[in-house]
Amino acid sequence: MRLTSDARGVFPIAPTPFRDDGSIDLESVDRLADFYVGCGATGVTVLGQLGEAPKLEHAEGVEVAVRTIRRAPSLPVVVGVSAPGFAAMRALTREVMDRGAAGVMIAPPNTLRTDDQVVGYYRQAVEAIGADVPFVIQDYPLTFSVQMAPAVIRRIVSENASCAMLKHEDWPGLEKISALRAWERDGSMRHIPILCGNNALFLDFEMERGADGANTGYCFPDMLVDVVRLSAQGKRDEAHDLFDAHLPLIRYEQQPGPGLAVRKYVMMKRGIIAHETLRKPGAQLTPAARAEVDYLLSRLARKDARAKVK
Amino acid sequence: MRLTSDARGVFPIAPTPFRDDGSIDLESVDRLADFYVGCGATGVTVLGQLGEAPKLEHAEGVEVAVRTIRRAPSLPVVVGVSAPGFAAMRALTREVMDRGAAGVMIAPPNTLRTDDQVVGYYRQAVEAIGADVPFVIQDYPLTFSVQMAPAVIRRIVSENASCAMLKHEDWPGLEKISALRAWERDGSMRHIPILCGNNALFLDFEMERGADGANTGYCFPDMLVDVVRLSAQGKRDEAHDLFDAHLPLIRYEQQPGPGLAVRKYVMMKRGIIAHETLRKPGAQLTPAARAEVDYLLSRLARKDARAKVK
Amino acid sequence: MRLTSDARGVFPIAPTPFRDDGSIDLESVDRLADFYVGCGATGVTVLGQLGEAPKLEHAEGVEVAVRTIRRAPSLPVVVGVSAPGFAAMRALTREVMDRGAAGVMIAPPNTLRTDDQVVGYYRQAVEAIGADVPFVIQDYPLTFSVQMAPAVIRRIVSENASCAMLKHEDWPGLEKISALRAWERDGSMRHIPILCGNNALFLDFEMERGADGANTGYCFPDMLVDVVRLSAQGKRDEAHDLFDAHLPLIRYEQQPGPGLAVRKYVMMKRGIIAHETLRKPGAQLTPAARAEVDYLLSRLARKDARAKVK
Amino acid sequence: MRLTSDARGVFPIAPTPFRDDGSIDLESVDRLADFYVGCGATGVTVLGQLGEAPKLEHAEGVEVAVRTIRRAPSLPVVVGVSAPGFAAMRALTREVMDRGAAGVMIAPPNTLRTDDQVVGYYRQAVEAIGADVPFVIQDYPLTFSVQMAPAVIRRIVSENASCAMLKHEDWPGLEKISALRAWERDGSMRHIPILCGNNALFLDFEMERGADGANTGYCFPDMLVDVVRLSAQGKRDEAHDLFDAHLPLIRYEQQPGPGLAVRKYVMMKRGIIAHETLRKPGAQLTPAARAEVDYLLSRLARKDARAKVK
Repeated sequence: MRLTSDARGVFPIAPTPFRDDGSIDLESVDRLADFYVGCGATGVTVLGQLGEAPKLEHAEGVEVAVRTIRRAPSLPVVVGVSAPGFAAMRALTREVMDRGAAGVMIAPPNTLRTDDQVVGYYRQAVEAIGADVPFVIQDYPLTFSVQMAPAVIRRIVSENASCAMLKHEDWPGLEKISALRAWERDGSMRHIPILCGNNALFLDFEMERGADGANTGYCFPDMLVDVVRLSAQGKRDEAHDLFDAHLPLIRYEQQPGPGLAVRKYVMMKRGIIAHETLRKPGAQLTPAARAEVDYLLSRLARKDARAKVK
Repeated sequence: MRLTSDARGVFPIAPTPFRDDGSIDLESVDRLADFYVGCGATGVTVLGQLGEAPKLEHAEGVEVAVRTIRRAPSLPVVVGVSAPGFAAMRALTREVMDRGAAGVMIAPPNTLRTDDQVVGYYRQAVEAIGADVPFVIQDYPLTFSVQMAPAVIRRIVSENASCAMLKHEDWPGLEKISALRAWERDGSMRHIPILCGNNALFLDFEMERGADGANTGYCFPDMLVDVVRLSAQGKRDEAHDLFDAHLPLIRYEQQPGPGLAVRKYVMMKRGIIAHETLRKPGAQLTPAARAEVDYLLSRLARKDARAKVK
Repeated sequence: MRLTSDARGVFPIAPTPFRDDGSIDLESVDRLADFYVGCGATGVTVLGQLGEAPKLEHAEGVEVAVRTIRRAPSLPVVVGVSAPGFAAMRALTREVMDRGAAGVMIAPPNTLRTDDQVVGYYRQAVEAIGADVPFVIQDYPLTFSVQMAPAVIRRIVSENASCAMLKHEDWPGLEKISALRAWERDGSMRHIPILCGNNALFLDFEMERGADGANTGYCFPDMLVDVVRLSAQGKRDEAHDLFDAHLPLIRYEQQPGPGLAVRKYVMMKRGIIAHETLRKPGAQLTPAARAEVDYLLSRLARKDARAKVK
Repeated sequence: MRLTSDARGVFPIAPTPFRDDGSIDLESVDRLADFYVGCGATGVTVLGQLGEAPKLEHAEGVEVAVRTIRRAPSLPVVVGVSAPGFAAMRALTREVMDRGAAGVMIAPPNTLRTDDQVVGYYRQAVEAIGADVPFVIQDYPLTFSVQMAPAVIRRIVSENASCAMLKHEDWPGLEKISALRAWERDGSMRHIPILCGNNALFLDFEMERGADGANTGYCFPDMLVDVVRLSAQGKRDEAHDLFDAHLPLIRYEQQPGPGLAVRKYVMMKRGIIAHETLRKPGAQLTPAARAEVDYLLSRLARKDARAKVK
């Protein structure tokens, strides 16, 4: 199954579950995949930045990807392959595509500055991985320090037929979605699915601006599915009501550093993964932070029963 | 009135109001000051980053500061004096301190990297402005790219008796507050007021970690006053209920770039300033963004009557 | 006298001379101006980054500029007006243009990333200072972190008729000169003088690539004049011989931080300015560094008599 | 053979030689190793930034390292293992140490800012690779944007007994060497070899400040050996004479981007490697640049016979 420009809905960014000793918890990989399928996700992305990809050895990364592909044959699985060099990017891409991945996700290295450098980078990446491999642009300036103007994204999309999706997490980013969609409407840019990241902090309005869904790791992917559906159905108030109930926790989880620990802690409490362990080096939740998350969950539980965890 | 280490409560960051032709709207400066006094602010900061200070000529900046000082004699007025060189910083400091300012706020230039560079910078700044002028550290890595470890803040506080406040807007920043407060408790650091910025995005928990209040420009400073009060009174749930009602708008206004336009638009609708004008160069709200803010206000109005604007 | 697109030769970046107490040494300002005229400079730039402009109060900056304009009426004087906001930029520009400056130099703020942001910034700057004021683009990525592709420079030049010069100090930068010159030859870009900075570290080859001269502060501006002349006359080996003799010192002076102290120390030893004082905050030469510069001068003196200083 | 604190002399940074089709040229790897041994190098570093390490697949990197270790059994071989995550760093370290490497070189990721972050990073790296593996600190702010104050280096050295060398390429960096050596003399820091990088741009004075040698890739490593020897023998003028003859080319080769192409081009002309090929993505020399290098070589040949190449 290859990623196509029909993609939409929710592609959760899967965390990589570890056991307490730091080894990969493959049972939890399976459970995660089952959960995503069960809650209505339309795809899944593994080995992203918040999948702790840089902490995995090559073989481990492949194992996580393959295990997910096998466990969720109904879902297209996108694999993060960002790397400091094209050799490693190509090697990982080939390996996972051969094993059934739907496509790969590529973030720009943080040394790029000018428009031409960014466009050139994606051209070279496509040359390295092969023009037949669907790829996702990750546009995440907050972490990668690379800013892509809408016109740069259009150039990448136009130059590379294999560009299959935009993981949109610019901030602020609402006008960018509007700009890209206006170009699509006036025929100056082909359609490309826009799925939003940034822990869904603006998903409510991003959907209304023309996004096709979410591509992020928030600990309630089932809520993301509901918000995307409600928004697509035009049930604006319901979508915002549900979204707003989660916003205090979304915001808390979106913090760089401790955010991933929050995510794993909640997913563990929800029974989706067995352990909250992060591989080193990784932030650990302090008791104070843990208590804050518990408090947020207890408040959320009044509005969304899914938050009722022990 | 000089800023002292007893400061607490809410010091709004005042926007600088302009008329449609870009000139300073002094009537609105007055109205703002009156509003702050009326809603229970305990101080006010002018000429901050979001006060469009870099767009003002020197004389204009002084005029805004002096007008505020005269109009709100009961409030300590802190003046942002960050500048690319110490000569300009000293000139502005002297001028406003002579006219009754309570202190100044200084952000580190984004070229600083090592701990010693940051500490050295504040030492030189104090030498430039005079050791008798109370100053506020602005710790805002997201905008200034300068990271100050808690130990660096402690060094600045210890070295400079005139350090009178921390404007805390690190992100993530909750553990930093806890670290500084732990040092205060164990006697290894003197007390310094911590007032929080970042458009109050974490004010709910920052108060619980030991912050003394807010020092930010959110368009409902009266709500900030209430949250700070409720939190200080230990009314945790009430504080969070009020805060959560505002969070969708807080988040929207916190966007760099359009955020300030959102703030002025809402304050204009609330009748606090006469025009929403930003000086060039400044982001303008698109019709789509304006409609989104209106929608957020209409939703907020159900929970907080202050949001009922025409 | 207005800066025109005929500019060529050497526009030294003038240091700002201070007395030992930190006050401006106006006699040395005069002496510097006389020296530049005497050695064949074709213009001069004051209040640049290495003119310690950020350390001057507004009135001081104006005084230095005006003094230079009066003392060297035969030279076009360019004034650095880079500022964090357009209001201050406009104020300084108007003041110095009214007093006879030939044009202004503008560096981009280090927050700019995309091509459109850079082009937009210069558009706004021109709007602020007036379209009748000739301006110089300062392209100095090493210090300002802003990268301008050749096509971006062409856009700025095309959009703004008042763009009168490029201070080229990209690194590496030789191919950029070749690219701009190729566009000039094929008619896709109007002529613009390219004068090179970066302490002249590549001036030998920059001239051969099509540069029109130097715009930098190396402590032997008279050598720069000779190299530019020899190169223009096609005396390649002589140009390189002279250049290479100075290269060990050029390299030493090009160090960020201590470099300006080296420059002032040598200019004081040469009798061009009276004191080597930098305003605070500024690097001071250690005894070891001072001895190294003395050694470099003694070695240079064997090849260039101008380096014979006591 | 393990790297010890007795290291000194010249550890060239070896380029990775490729054939025209981009495959690794193992014969040239051998020839390089022979050349280093023959010219008096005392060690060699492979898989550095300019060894195009990020462009190699894992197995290729190991192959280059092992081939060099086998071919030059008399030289300690240091292997660059910098990686975005500790898992990859550990995997490569174990593999090469098992095959006879003398130690590894680690550069800090460019996200680090505060002193504690830098020190903490090296602590975690040592935990990952094992406290028995000698490691080299690469201090290269120009490329990695991480600034290490001398006190930070001292902390790393003190905390980690396995820290065996400093690859010094801060810029400016002379005072840093003096500071570290002063601490060594007063007993507040143990001895650590300091070998200098930055294409040797300041090697002349770095040796005089107390450096132990060079650890860089300049295309005439034999010249580096001579300068280090002359300097160690106190033949100051001879050392500078030789150094200055090479400085025009050193400077030219030190350009980021095209610099590595210059290096390989000259080493090919010298017969040390068979091809000048860089793996993609890599700068190619333009005809103009090639002619400039030829000219620099022809000028150098008058003073150093080694530069006489066809």
